[in-house]
Amino acid sequence: MFKKQYNYYLNLVEEYLESLPFEESLICRSMNYSLNGGGKRIRPVLALACVELVGGQPVKFVREAVALELIHTYSLIHDDLPSMDNADYRRGKLANHKVFGEAIAILAGDALLTMAFELLSQPLSIPAERQLRVIREVASAAGYKGMVGGQVLDTFNNIEINTIADIEEIHSLKTGALLTAAARLGAILGGGTEKEIEKVTRYAADIGLAFQIRDDILDVIGDSAILGKPNGSDQKLNKKTYPYLLGLEGANTKLRETIESAKEAIQSFGPKAAFLELLADYVAERQN
Amino acid sequence: MFKKQYNYYLNLVEEYLESLPFEESLICRSMNYSLNGGGKRIRPVLALACVELVGGQPVKFVREAVALELIHTYSLIHDDLPSMDNADYRRGKLANHKVFGEAIAILAGDALLTMAFELLSQPLSIPAERQLRVIREVASAAGYKGMVGGQVLDTFNNIEINTIADIEEIHSLKTGALLTAAARLGAILGGGTEKEIEKVTRYAADIGLAFQIRDDILDVIGDSAILGKPNGSDQKLNKKTYPYLLGLEGANTKLRETIESAKEAIQSFGPKAAFLELLADYVAERQN
Repeated sequence: MFKKQYNYYLNLVEEYLESLPFEESLICRSMNYSLNGGGKRIRPVLALACVELVGGQPVKFVREAVALELIHTYSLIHDDLPSMDNADYRRGKLANHKVFGEAIAILAGDALLTMAFELLSQPLSIPAERQLRVIREVASAAGYKGMVGGQVLDTFNNIEINTIADIEEIHSLKTGALLTAAARLGAILGGGTEKEIEKVTRYAADIGLAFQIRDDILDVIGDSAILGKPNGSDQKLNKKTYPYLLGLEGANTKLRETIESAKEAIQSFGPKAAFLELLADYVAERQN
Repeated sequence: MFKKQYNYYLNLVEEYLESLPFEESLICRSMNYSLNGGGKRIRPVLALACVELVGGQPVKFVREAVALELIHTYSLIHDDLPSMDNADYRRGKLANHKVFGEAIAILAGDALLTMAFELLSQPLSIPAERQLRVIREVASAAGYKGMVGGQVLDTFNNIEINTIADIEEIHSLKTGALLTAAARLGAILGGGTEKEIEKVTRYAADIGLAFQIRDDILDVIGDSAILGKPNGSDQKLNKKTYPYLLGLEGANTKLRETIESAKEAIQSFGPKAAFLELLADYVAERQN
């Protein structure tokens, strides 16, 4: 059931991505290269699942969900740049800047971020105030108080990270903010109540945390071929990770607790929450 | 009269910029450094003048006008990066990346771009549909079909530029798109008719062109101290400019014609257009 539902959302997202009217230009090829990187599309999938959870129709908000994937993709392109994480590979293929050069990689990221807001502001058949709220929240989550702020901390403050609270702050910004925005986008566009929006927010914050813990664990135990990048790279960079601070067993315990907390947040939706509960398990058990 | 009016708009913009709630963090200091670079703020000023031109109240839309300055500032930070124009100075002081390093400069640009959309989507006392239209148009103008596209052409296609039409295409994207968006933002938020919006669009497109021609001319005849950057740099980079293609006299003629065309576009507004007419002259005669 989980896989079928995931693929239903995923297909909506992929179809929309394929329909984007990119020209045959250098910048568009670069944007497309990273957009078609074979990601899990967890942000738009989460958004569409939250639309459905609160009683909305996912097919009506695919464009808005895809905007989140554009923002995520831009952040990956910029994070991989030589002056940031200096990563040569991403999702098993060459990083954007390794194919198109630094200048185009920066500009493709800029263009994807900008395009996200173009997609978010197209006419919809819901109250425009609701749409403005989504734009406001997504911009806030992606900016210096959210995702960009997390990247700054991740790139520059590594030396001062000593406690679980420190890495949780980074990840709640770097990964959590946009995941939370995705869930809220879905719940707001889908017509959820404030209480429902609040619930999916807590769910998504936990999922974001779990995602990062699993990422850290996979860097230790994962298979490089399945990961699409070499494992052990955190250790090489001397990164403070969950396994580094808690040990592998401690990190696994923390992961389980976080998943339980995520499920609890949406428990009151009853059977309608089944997909999101399974999504939580998927995040905890994924191999890449 | 012109200077007084310009300073009125400028003060609104500067006051708002100063009131932005930046924290004492590395990323905010970097954003602030470039925002307080002492620019002419021509985009927000143009926007506020267009609000007034169509009968709206400029004080009501300062935040939205400032969003354009954030987008402009982000584009300057990214353009100056080593992998792009590799400029050490901007507006007479060190470029952002020379002070904060490449990584922070990239992230500060990202954060400014993102924050612009946060500012554009705050609640306003006008129909939300109108606000969504502004966001849509600004995003489109700033993206790969507009400003980013212009930067790509400017950075990579220099070799193939041989005609005035070629450079006009670049500049209509690189400078014109955001200026046009600024004028339209003002006219739309101010409650202008479609015809009025159309008129300021033509005006702004001409102003953008004139701005670039004057820029090219100043690079030949300007005073480095007043310019805040070394002159003659276009020639050093072998850039195809208006003076390069038309000669200095030809470029000056082209500039005068463009200014006339700009004034003609807004003629029908009568005396209300006085400020924008003087703004056109200012663009043609500025020394930096």
